[in-house]
Amino acid sequence: MSSPTPVRVAEQYVIGIDFGTLSGRAVVVRVSDGAELGTGTHDYPHAVMDTVLASSGAVLPPDWALQVPADYVEVLKVAVPAAIAASGIDPALVIGVGTDFTASTPLPVIADGTPLNELPEYADRPHAYVKLWKHHAAQAQADRINELAASRGESWLPRYGGLISSEWEFAKGLQLLEEDPEAYERMEHWVEAADWIVWQLTGHYIRNACTAGYKGILQDGAYPSRDFLGALNPAFAGFAEDKVAHEIGQLGASAGTLSKRAAEWTGLPEGIAVAVGNVDAHVTAPAAQAVEPGQMLAIMGTSTCHVMNSDVLTEVPGMCGVVDGGIVSGLYGYEAGQSGVGDIFAWYVKNQVPGSYRAAADAAGQGIHEYLTDLVKDQPVGGHGLVALDWQSGNRSVLVDHELSGLVLGTTLTTRPEEIYRALFEATAFGTRTIVETFAASGVPVTEFIVAGGLLRNAFLMQVYSDVLRMPISIIASEQGPALGSAIHAAVAAGAYADVLAAGRAMGKVDRAVYTPDSAAADAYDLLFAEYATLHDYFGRGGNGVMHRLKAIKREAAGRVASASERIETGAGA
Amino acid sequence: MSSPTPVRVAEQYVIGIDFGTLSGRAVVVRVSDGAELGTGTHDYPHAVMDTVLASSGAVLPPDWALQVPADYVEVLKVAVPAAIAASGIDPALVIGVGTDFTASTPLPVIADGTPLNELPEYADRPHAYVKLWKHHAAQAQADRINELAASRGESWLPRYGGLISSEWEFAKGLQLLEEDPEAYERMEHWVEAADWIVWQLTGHYIRNACTAGYKGILQDGAYPSRDFLGALNPAFAGFAEDKVAHEIGQLGASAGTLSKRAAEWTGLPEGIAVAVGNVDAHVTAPAAQAVEPGQMLAIMGTSTCHVMNSDVLTEVPGMCGVVDGGIVSGLYGYEAGQSGVGDIFAWYVKNQVPGSYRAAADAAGQGIHEYLTDLVKDQPVGGHGLVALDWQSGNRSVLVDHELSGLVLGTTLTTRPEEIYRALFEATAFGTRTIVETFAASGVPVTEFIVAGGLLRNAFLMQVYSDVLRMPISIIASEQGPALGSAIHAAVAAGAYADVLAAGRAMGKVDRAVYTPDSAAADAYDLLFAEYATLHDYFGRGGNGVMHRLKAIKREAAGRVASASERIETGAGA
Repeated sequence: MSSPTPVRVAEQYVIGIDFGTLSGRAVVVRVSDGAELGTGTHDYPHAVMDTVLASSGAVLPPDWALQVPADYVEVLKVAVPAAIAASGIDPALVIGVGTDFTASTPLPVIADGTPLNELPEYADRPHAYVKLWKHHAAQAQADRINELAASRGESWLPRYGGLISSEWEFAKGLQLLEEDPEAYERMEHWVEAADWIVWQLTGHYIRNACTAGYKGILQDGAYPSRDFLGALNPAFAGFAEDKVAHEIGQLGASAGTLSKRAAEWTGLPEGIAVAVGNVDAHVTAPAAQAVEPGQMLAIMGTSTCHVMNSDVLTEVPGMCGVVDGGIVSGLYGYEAGQSGVGDIFAWYVKNQVPGSYRAAADAAGQGIHEYLTDLVKDQPVGGHGLVALDWQSGNRSVLVDHELSGLVLGTTLTTRPEEIYRALFEATAFGTRTIVETFAASGVPVTEFIVAGGLLRNAFLMQVYSDVLRMPISIIASEQGPALGSAIHAAVAAGAYADVLAAGRAMGKVDRAVYTPDSAAADAYDLLFAEYATLHDYFGRGGNGVMHRLKAIKREAAGRVASASERIETGAGA
Repeated sequence: MSSPTPVRVAEQYVIGIDFGTLSGRAVVVRVSDGAELGTGTHDYPHAVMDTVLASSGAVLPPDWALQVPADYVEVLKVAVPAAIAASGIDPALVIGVGTDFTASTPLPVIADGTPLNELPEYADRPHAYVKLWKHHAAQAQADRINELAASRGESWLPRYGGLISSEWEFAKGLQLLEEDPEAYERMEHWVEAADWIVWQLTGHYIRNACTAGYKGILQDGAYPSRDFLGALNPAFAGFAEDKVAHEIGQLGASAGTLSKRAAEWTGLPEGIAVAVGNVDAHVTAPAAQAVEPGQMLAIMGTSTCHVMNSDVLTEVPGMCGVVDGGIVSGLYGYEAGQSGVGDIFAWYVKNQVPGSYRAAADAAGQGIHEYLTDLVKDQPVGGHGLVALDWQSGNRSVLVDHELSGLVLGTTLTTRPEEIYRALFEATAFGTRTIVETFAASGVPVTEFIVAGGLLRNAFLMQVYSDVLRMPISIIASEQGPALGSAIHAAVAAGAYADVLAAGRAMGKVDRAVYTPDSAAADAYDLLFAEYATLHDYFGRGGNGVMHRLKAIKREAAGRVASASERIETGAGA
């Protein structure tokens, strides 16, 4: 009657670290099943510098957004030990570390990785700092890149839906050259923070395939040519070769091992695996078990980022990018996006909802979003008589046009605030449907729709998406998708799993088909979507360029005011 | 050194009485110069019955709006003596009385003028009461009138811009017939309240040319034919001949003299002149010195009514009506309208302005309209990047389409509440410009624009209209335009002036060209107006029927809900 005593193998752990816009968050995760055992966070001491440079107090121009690289190292020193302590595990059982970062968030460094801003003579030079993803002051450079690439028919342009963003490496690098040529000259690498933090952990620089592809215009093994770059600015000809190009690491691969210095910072064992760097959205895919071809992951927050793998390479109109191994090694990773989603709802609630609603929400102990949702969620589809366009922040996919703007149509004297709020919900769902249908029409069908990000908490919004898409909606079952995804990559880098797909199956967490479409509601939404689609094409594809013209008129009006105040300031009279 | 002692001629006075929606207002006016010397008002005891019938407590169906005729007589008994007392004049010096009324506000009476509701056996019958102008329960009848008239090509239809309103005499009369045939049978006259009150003053029934033309479809001396009316409903064939047709009195003519009974009610001398009845908007024209051909008077309140005389008869697309002698005898009176103006601003302020704005307005001691206006009035034209359509209450002129709805285009995440508020101001100005341009294109040019009504108090709104129309804006210089207009008609009826034009010149009050166009602003508004015009035609003239379809979807959705609750109530299950 004796049975063999089971050999108890000690559990192993990995650390995932998610570097966000304002803070870093470390999570201790069990390798066997992805259980999240402890968390530590640390706010960046300098947060985002978008008005003044901390070192000098100098005022920054509009649209700038800088960070201090040393703040990221503090996350290693503070958040990682805090997560270990919170989990109660023995740090000796940690076998790997993985990280993810905002992107494109590049910084200029010298050969040994020292950021330019840490050289005393550069401490007061704004261009020596990290340019955060939302630094938007390189729009003029982006415009020139796009115009020149379009006129020359550069082969890489369609891989980005026809538009290189001002947020990406090349536009920001060109701005650096043109506004601070001395700093540009001194810079030896233009490094993504995603890779710089791994460099700090290992002591070696490896460039990750994700940011290199999506943000660094690396396609089919090549960057934009010397010829192209020199045509933008002769001094920029060597940018790709001299400042950007570097050894590429595939996602889930090991970038090296934890250095003695980094082991001291973190309290982790020296020599454990450190995964190649990654991006917050893309790293979440295995955490949500959304890595198989056809599984589209939507990270829904202030904006929405859609990522999906496929085994075919094609050009989808208006996508943000397609990158070989951009999400998991061995598959083509597609990215699309909606420029405004949660921030449209936030704008509406801040600017267009009366005080009586706030008071009623307070009295009911509800947040304003919850209150508005409850007021309108039982209205039958189409009961508000409205249709809206979700372009208050422009349109990324599929029109790639940031000069578009928002529209609400159908209001009457009995239209209520919550009805317009719902119409905005629906507009973002229609925008998503437009993307899903465009992927399908391009030969990359979406077979499952999985949601991560803060907006998944609004059950009514999720139901609208399910009805509008006529698809079940699955939901990530972790509160910290990016950190969990980084931990999964750490486990693969440490050799605990054969690849990211296998690790995701074991450690990722998703609740399948939490919302399923109601066919009567879906039929009713089809009618509204048809109206959305007609307006989408009329205003978005050249039927009526009014939105472009209104933005031009607005800029011209602002210019008149600015030049008038200048006249007043200089005493030049009217 | 003696000079001839001037012969002091005793001043003469007239009384103008304006019957509004909720109250009547009497004003004592000096005949020589129009000075307003005293005012009295009286609220109708039954106000508007739109939920229950006062006599029985019975619940009224949706869209009903009734009044009690005896309430109007109380105004004669209370407000007139109060006005005399307030003025301090000797009532023996009053030489005439004039009145104006809301329209179309008809009531059923027997041969001697007794309202049906005053017959004891009819006191509890809703159809025995006055149907106030905003009784909107005859829409089904109006739709049938319009469809039949269009299909038969009735010659009178274009005189009303192609649409007979549910508010007018024929639609309301047909509803009465079809819902209470006994009351219809008993009724001997279907009388406008404007004429009924004059009947009460004189003892004789005279039908005024204004309501007969604008509300009673009297064109070129004829009503719609027996054949047409019989095709609507065989029992309706004799409606015009038997119930409506009556001797017509021209505006400014005497309808008779004050009866002994009315003299007792009012305290005025028996036998003085009583002017033919009139309508509140039209009667205001001479009060604002806006009776010459080409002078367009806009009465701007919750909606805007435009009236203008011309010496030519033509068909202006989308006008409300053209009537021979409809404003002053001897000229063709044109009427146009914007269904929503002040009520769009009120809807916006109630539903789309955050509580923080209310608090700031309170702190500044300002009303919310004043506060919003101050925030945005100095923004350069086009600085908001917005264009709106002012169709939240449908479009009366020039599209004659109440299935249209509102639109705001151009919003971004930085759009502020006051910017949309201003865009709505501008939209109503663009709507007015569309009307003015349509009149001009039809051979009835507008040469001067004069404003009466509550919205004239917003100086910024007036400046917007001046800039958008590129015309000076003149402003009526009386707080009580309709009552002053009625007094002017009383003076003419009494023989103090040869005609309404002469009386208006002496007694009317206008400040000319209070606002003049700024040519730079006008140039900038031209760009926005061009965008408005493109959207106006696209959504309003068949380019995209989305607004119609959304209203149909909305009605269908409401129908689904209603039938679902019915199933629940009757226990019939889903």
